[in-house]
Amino acid sequence: MNDILRRRLTSGMDKDVARFISSMDVDRWIFEPDILVNKAHVMMLCEQNIVSKEDCSSILRALDTIKKGGFTSLDATLEDVHVAIESKVIELAGEAGSRMHTAKSRNDEVATCIRIALREEILEMMRELIALRKVLLNVADKNTSTIMPGFTHLQHAQPTTLAHHLIAHADAFKRDFDRIVDAYARVNLCPLGAGAFASTGFPINRERVAQLLGFDSLIENSMDAVSTRDFAIECIATFANTMVDLSRIAEEFILWSTPEFDFIELDDRYASTSSIMPQKKNPDALELIRAKTGSVGGELQSVLSICKALPYSYNRDLQEVTPHLIKATSTLRSSLRIMTGIIDTMQVKSDKMAAATHAGFITATELADTIVRETDIPFRTAHQVVGTLARSGQKPTLDQIDVASKKVTGKKLSELGLTQASLDKALDPEQSIQIRCIRGGPAPKETIRMTKDRMKQTSSDMKSLDQKVDKINAALRQLNAPVREK
Amino acid sequence: MNDILRRRLTSGMDKDVARFISSMDVDRWIFEPDILVNKAHVMMLCEQNIVSKEDCSSILRALDTIKKGGFTSLDATLEDVHVAIESKVIELAGEAGSRMHTAKSRNDEVATCIRIALREEILEMMRELIALRKVLLNVADKNTSTIMPGFTHLQHAQPTTLAHHLIAHADAFKRDFDRIVDAYARVNLCPLGAGAFASTGFPINRERVAQLLGFDSLIENSMDAVSTRDFAIECIATFANTMVDLSRIAEEFILWSTPEFDFIELDDRYASTSSIMPQKKNPDALELIRAKTGSVGGELQSVLSICKALPYSYNRDLQEVTPHLIKATSTLRSSLRIMTGIIDTMQVKSDKMAAATHAGFITATELADTIVRETDIPFRTAHQVVGTLARSGQKPTLDQIDVASKKVTGKKLSELGLTQASLDKALDPEQSIQIRCIRGGPAPKETIRMTKDRMKQTSSDMKSLDQKVDKINAALRQLNAPVREK
Amino acid sequence: MNDILRRRLTSGMDKDVARFISSMDVDRWIFEPDILVNKAHVMMLCEQNIVSKEDCSSILRALDTIKKGGFTSLDATLEDVHVAIESKVIELAGEAGSRMHTAKSRNDEVATCIRIALREEILEMMRELIALRKVLLNVADKNTSTIMPGFTHLQHAQPTTLAHHLIAHADAFKRDFDRIVDAYARVNLCPLGAGAFASTGFPINRERVAQLLGFDSLIENSMDAVSTRDFAIECIATFANTMVDLSRIAEEFILWSTPEFDFIELDDRYASTSSIMPQKKNPDALELIRAKTGSVGGELQSVLSICKALPYSYNRDLQEVTPHLIKATSTLRSSLRIMTGIIDTMQVKSDKMAAATHAGFITATELADTIVRETDIPFRTAHQVVGTLARSGQKPTLDQIDVASKKVTGKKLSELGLTQASLDKALDPEQSIQIRCIRGGPAPKETIRMTKDRMKQTSSDMKSLDQKVDKINAALRQLNAPVREK
Amino acid sequence: MNDILRRRLTSGMDKDVARFISSMDVDRWIFEPDILVNKAHVMMLCEQNIVSKEDCSSILRALDTIKKGGFTSLDATLEDVHVAIESKVIELAGEAGSRMHTAKSRNDEVATCIRIALREEILEMMRELIALRKVLLNVADKNTSTIMPGFTHLQHAQPTTLAHHLIAHADAFKRDFDRIVDAYARVNLCPLGAGAFASTGFPINRERVAQLLGFDSLIENSMDAVSTRDFAIECIATFANTMVDLSRIAEEFILWSTPEFDFIELDDRYASTSSIMPQKKNPDALELIRAKTGSVGGELQSVLSICKALPYSYNRDLQEVTPHLIKATSTLRSSLRIMTGIIDTMQVKSDKMAAATHAGFITATELADTIVRETDIPFRTAHQVVGTLARSGQKPTLDQIDVASKKVTGKKLSELGLTQASLDKALDPEQSIQIRCIRGGPAPKETIRMTKDRMKQTSSDMKSLDQKVDKINAALRQLNAPVREK
Repeated sequence: MNDILRRRLTSGMDKDVARFISSMDVDRWIFEPDILVNKAHVMMLCEQNIVSKEDCSSILRALDTIKKGGFTSLDATLEDVHVAIESKVIELAGEAGSRMHTAKSRNDEVATCIRIALREEILEMMRELIALRKVLLNVADKNTSTIMPGFTHLQHAQPTTLAHHLIAHADAFKRDFDRIVDAYARVNLCPLGAGAFASTGFPINRERVAQLLGFDSLIENSMDAVSTRDFAIECIATFANTMVDLSRIAEEFILWSTPEFDFIELDDRYASTSSIMPQKKNPDALELIRAKTGSVGGELQSVLSICKALPYSYNRDLQEVTPHLIKATSTLRSSLRIMTGIIDTMQVKSDKMAAATHAGFITATELADTIVRETDIPFRTAHQVVGTLARSGQKPTLDQIDVASKKVTGKKLSELGLTQASLDKALDPEQSIQIRCIRGGPAPKETIRMTKDRMKQTSSDMKSLDQKVDKINAALRQLNAPVREK
Repeated sequence: MNDILRRRLTSGMDKDVARFISSMDVDRWIFEPDILVNKAHVMMLCEQNIVSKEDCSSILRALDTIKKGGFTSLDATLEDVHVAIESKVIELAGEAGSRMHTAKSRNDEVATCIRIALREEILEMMRELIALRKVLLNVADKNTSTIMPGFTHLQHAQPTTLAHHLIAHADAFKRDFDRIVDAYARVNLCPLGAGAFASTGFPINRERVAQLLGFDSLIENSMDAVSTRDFAIECIATFANTMVDLSRIAEEFILWSTPEFDFIELDDRYASTSSIMPQKKNPDALELIRAKTGSVGGELQSVLSICKALPYSYNRDLQEVTPHLIKATSTLRSSLRIMTGIIDTMQVKSDKMAAATHAGFITATELADTIVRETDIPFRTAHQVVGTLARSGQKPTLDQIDVASKKVTGKKLSELGLTQASLDKALDPEQSIQIRCIRGGPAPKETIRMTKDRMKQTSSDMKSLDQKVDKINAALRQLNAPVREK
Repeated sequence: MNDILRRRLTSGMDKDVARFISSMDVDRWIFEPDILVNKAHVMMLCEQNIVSKEDCSSILRALDTIKKGGFTSLDATLEDVHVAIESKVIELAGEAGSRMHTAKSRNDEVATCIRIALREEILEMMRELIALRKVLLNVADKNTSTIMPGFTHLQHAQPTTLAHHLIAHADAFKRDFDRIVDAYARVNLCPLGAGAFASTGFPINRERVAQLLGFDSLIENSMDAVSTRDFAIECIATFANTMVDLSRIAEEFILWSTPEFDFIELDDRYASTSSIMPQKKNPDALELIRAKTGSVGGELQSVLSICKALPYSYNRDLQEVTPHLIKATSTLRSSLRIMTGIIDTMQVKSDKMAAATHAGFITATELADTIVRETDIPFRTAHQVVGTLARSGQKPTLDQIDVASKKVTGKKLSELGLTQASLDKALDPEQSIQIRCIRGGPAPKETIRMTKDRMKQTSSDMKSLDQKVDKINAALRQLNAPVREK
Repeated sequence: MNDILRRRLTSGMDKDVARFISSMDVDRWIFEPDILVNKAHVMMLCEQNIVSKEDCSSILRALDTIKKGGFTSLDATLEDVHVAIESKVIELAGEAGSRMHTAKSRNDEVATCIRIALREEILEMMRELIALRKVLLNVADKNTSTIMPGFTHLQHAQPTTLAHHLIAHADAFKRDFDRIVDAYARVNLCPLGAGAFASTGFPINRERVAQLLGFDSLIENSMDAVSTRDFAIECIATFANTMVDLSRIAEEFILWSTPEFDFIELDDRYASTSSIMPQKKNPDALELIRAKTGSVGGELQSVLSICKALPYSYNRDLQEVTPHLIKATSTLRSSLRIMTGIIDTMQVKSDKMAAATHAGFITATELADTIVRETDIPFRTAHQVVGTLARSGQKPTLDQIDVASKKVTGKKLSELGLTQASLDKALDPEQSIQIRCIRGGPAPKETIRMTKDRMKQTSSDMKSLDQKVDKINAALRQLNAPVREK
């Protein structure tokens, strides 16, 4: 039994069990973070005179060697990446290596590794979200005059523009971005030094380790530090929320790609075809984004259920959280990237959108509003008059309006001030859009203003993202500096 | 057919269907918010000269009358609270009432109502969370010297104190608090003026309405304003995360109340007994908090699944989100209150905790650490020596240590510097705790410092909560001022 | 303290807690079952000479009185319906009443009540499912020649008929029906006599109680009987599966009701309109069925998470399962009923369906198949030839086919045997459907056969449902017979 | 562009997208099933004279070659295993290979493959479940006299035996087994021949293919055949239900392994230790089974959400279902195997169980029952008397009982017939168990009977499982017979 941990037990572990409890298949994700964690920990131990400079150098060199060898160079039969790396360090650095695990535990170690791996993913995700917002705003910018039917209940409701529609999505993704920024502040905290949960009797310096690893601060209470996965729940919940937003735009594009809607055509690079129906062009990538939204919801559910009712401090259950976190993270990242490409390359069929807007009686609301403004009859009465006219599904004439109004109110609206000119204006989708120029409305003047404003937001978001990345990189550069001989 | 909306359709709605699509059973939650929304909207319409002062006063008076009558005075057969209130206003205020729905839609109206109702719940929830943190810190403060076994994998791991343990929970709830604060900033935004989704052609003033209703800002894009429920997902996710934290402490208290652990006794006010086993005292409230954690997770799942792949803008599906939001909110609020009471009144059996800590070989880690410090053999070697000793489950003598060490390292540790005095110290739980005085550790010096620090945090959190409440109250006071005759 | 249970505790329960742990709000669902359970239990106690005939009669009379008074006549401040009914029986029957709870516990009592209430719901649900299948088959029967585009990826794929499409849905609902039948066999089992979990030392007769209550058999092991809620999980899972099937047809009808598809028109009784867009006719009921699918999924998730990791036997957590079961049950029942009405009353626009089928090049697969049959070139080659033709989106001429074929294969297909006649046939949707007459295909001959076959299935399913109901009714009639004076 | 499908599109697929939509990473699961499906399909095509004997032989030989090469020999850059295998067949068999996809589509192909792979997993799972039930019954058989405290609310409730407790678990797993058997009947149905959804115009023989592949029958309607994944939902739901049952016994064993309970000791082969706390023996495998219960719940949730509201027939979303099905399947299988090993090897500490049963006043219920039987006072009164005695937590003397009874009823129970002998008997846990010999009770006589009965059930379940396996093997043997030269 050469397992460095199992000396207390009288027999080896059953092989099925060993495979069952091993986390090696997902530990690839935290291989590089674990190298960093061990480096920072050992450098601090050295500064605090807990290990000697010579031992520290030996360990650091061994870690560099392991990093070069890569994850696959580790012994895959061991329980996890931490034991695998420590075993290798002992192999490479001898007795010095046996000092590396002084004053830490796998409990604080794995929590630290996950936070490091996650923050990197999050930072990349922020970049993807900014790219998506930009491409939405770009297409919006070109389509402030592209009229289309606005839908409620998937029925034609009122005219709007593609710009108005896409800015709505961009705003949703801006909130998703902000939520991730908020979550980041609770992710980038250092648990190291918490030990198994009771911290340690060695005079370590937790602040120093946090600084070396580019963390913003500590998870202070040592029992809290190893017990909590609330940051994972928060992140996956935020990712699930973002996936829902992606699924909604995906659904729209799937609908808009049907021969029935025919509002857009996906670029061939983002479509596939059938194994037996050669005429088909299928929006597979969009369907998968939609489906993966369900998957990320499931990851969240798993993690909530796993963490429920776990007594403090560490339980092995927490190991089962990590694969869900990885899956949710990578699913969102790739979905964001694909969606950005789809929007960037799709062809907008503005003529089809316009034709759909002009068909039917989509301006009924504007007609009712116009009646209110021109004749001063109450809105609810105007709604009733227009409602009886709407049964035909066609735009009404002034005469028809008068007949309907007579029945409802006893008076003809043309006698109360409704003119042919104002009727024509009310029934025209473009006019209906132009007049909706209050804050947030679809009028081009307003959508142009909103687009500009949001472009500025993306620039400022990018700046603050870069600052986060720079801070971490500066810390890690120091950590990864060549080991000086001492 | 006297339904004010159905004039376009030629027949009434099937009664089963009417019941199926009605939201009246949950609309009680937004009855008062809807009164507020209508008031603010009409006051703005008046300021913008869209309705006259006389009509405005009539409507405001009617709304005051309805508010006094209460939710139950509405016609329960109508589709929702908005139609019910508007119908009643028309009944009370005549033609003026028919003008109330000018320049708004139920889509923006319901979104605004939900945000108002939710922010109130959230503010109360923040108060409950502060109370819970305080009671945890109070009990911690009294138990900085109450030693207990710290657990990993529900096995005795290392000694700690009750204070250390409870501060860990308080810190988790502090993060829950912060998450709710972050969510609040995305909840307290005004969608009103978005209309059905396309805003309106009337020259309304959205900023003014937002101010009257105590909102911090607008949900600007009008399509976004009615389409999104991301704030509901975020809130329920945050509540679910908090419930998980509650379930973990609930689980511990359930375990600690068993005859096997016997660490605490619940106050009779928070326990129940059996219908046939008269000797029993059951932790029912704690079990229900644990169970309700599953329920709130389910509410979250429902909402994620409901919102997935909904095309913009409003769809009736969104109506099904609200009951889940209400349920999650009220479950968390009551669970927080109950948990605060349980902790406040439970009896801590510190003698039992101490006895459990002294039994067995819980200080094995400290012994290994001591060996490292005293003899300078590497940690992994010391771990191995102590590991072979640990099989007996009893604290070892110096002789036994020497025998084990001889086998592993070829040397006796007593010859390398391990003394009886340092062994005694290493094996003593109290000493093991005292020495763990680094940041976040269980040593009384550190837990006293942490408690003080967190008490200050709760005060400052309370202050900023009060400011939020005051701001809203100031706005609403103006809105609810008696209607002046004009 | 007049609570009949709390004599072991020295103080009453905190009021907030009492409300928190009370199940009275959902116990309405098991009020009548609890009366039945108490009756059967007491009749058996009498037969076994555990209570006297006089006491038995007094208790039965008291139970009849309580049943007449209804659920609202109970003391709503008590913990649950069991205590409330027992308290009332003691009030009405004096000392005799105090004997009613002999040899049972609330643990076996509530489990029995839930199974009785649930089996009734399930039987009604089976009836609703049969009705839905019938209406689908009726509409299918009328539309075996109604051609429409069949979709994959929501793109036009191949022609089919409405009958073929609706039988597919009917078959899914048949499987849902069968799953509920399977679940029923695990629901209709009697836990009574299990006591708190350890059964009882009184010489009771469990088989007799089961028979009196119309159960098919026992949940035998007494610890299993009170601990398990696997039947609830199974039922909710089955309901969730059925809701998914409902949501799929709901989604189709929502799409088909858009102006873009325009394949059906919902009856006005199943539609609603807008508060400001008078031209609209919204498929609200369908949207809510779709949304409620998410809700039932959430109920399932809640119950899975609640039951996870509960040690045996009874824990109060199980109380939190029941509301989810009720909610899931009633949601599915009403959704089934509404969907049946919608299908029964909707108008099929067969002309629009036909027109959509004739547009575009939907018969590309049939053309490739025809080429294979007429010219014997391999399918994959034929697929390639047709694929290059399909880019235009239009049906090709024989000349165009020859040009394409020449490029791909070096030969003209007209020279290999492809004639104008066979081309015409291949391009004609009706012909394409006619030829698909293998088992399960869309050809009218086959859909007529399938419809007939499934109609027979519904009849036989109805028969076996009626047998189940009759068996229970016979048992309950005996139980509810007037109490004879003894 | 040498992709055999993309001739209709003018450009290749973006590489990121190709990776995003590829299912190759999970298709390993259906590699062998796909070989079988292609074989059976081609043999039928040959029998129906749709392809020639020579072409059939060439294709079969190519398929055998591919099978030998294994999954990794396929072109991993292709979209899925079906295209990869077909491409390879074309490469190996030339023009003959291009005929293999005649009269089928990937839609029916993948549905068939999943059902074949799943049924194999299910059959293995049934075997694991029988093994688990057997080991539970074996341990029960040895422990019919091992008394232990029975728990409700995790409080000592009444005495029971380990046999009674373990049979309860075995019965739950029997129901899980039956549910899987029910699900199997809906899994082992053949969709092949459904084509893309519209079946085919070629005169294929669907029944023959089903028979060759060992299916029990067809999924008949061709649109249903490719659209439904209800069998996947049902299976995962059943697996999740089973995992819940596993998690409950896992939780008990985790509790029983604590120093506080100390009822069992896990075998070293199923335990692990700590990286820094050498005294520890951790129940990691049990914790992971508990955690994975949450994961399987999440897989279920994912699939429900993915399938919700998908219009017929096939959508790419369905591809995202498969990995969840695989994950749930393999998780349950390994969890069952591990749990069986744990129970088989763990050490039962019957002395500790007995000691815990004798401590405290666990026989309070039996005392109340005895009072009822001996004195004929009503149960609720006896419960009250014992309740007041129970506050002390100790077993009462006859004198104490008289004092308490006097207060409650005005009489001494010793005067009403309660003797010291009957009191002694009532307070003795063994006696309390002996007397509970009604059906399902803990008395050894009854648990011995139940164990025997259930052992017979496992044998009969094994027999019917073997019949299922034999039937499939017979079919596949024919299919895998060497290709005869023709």
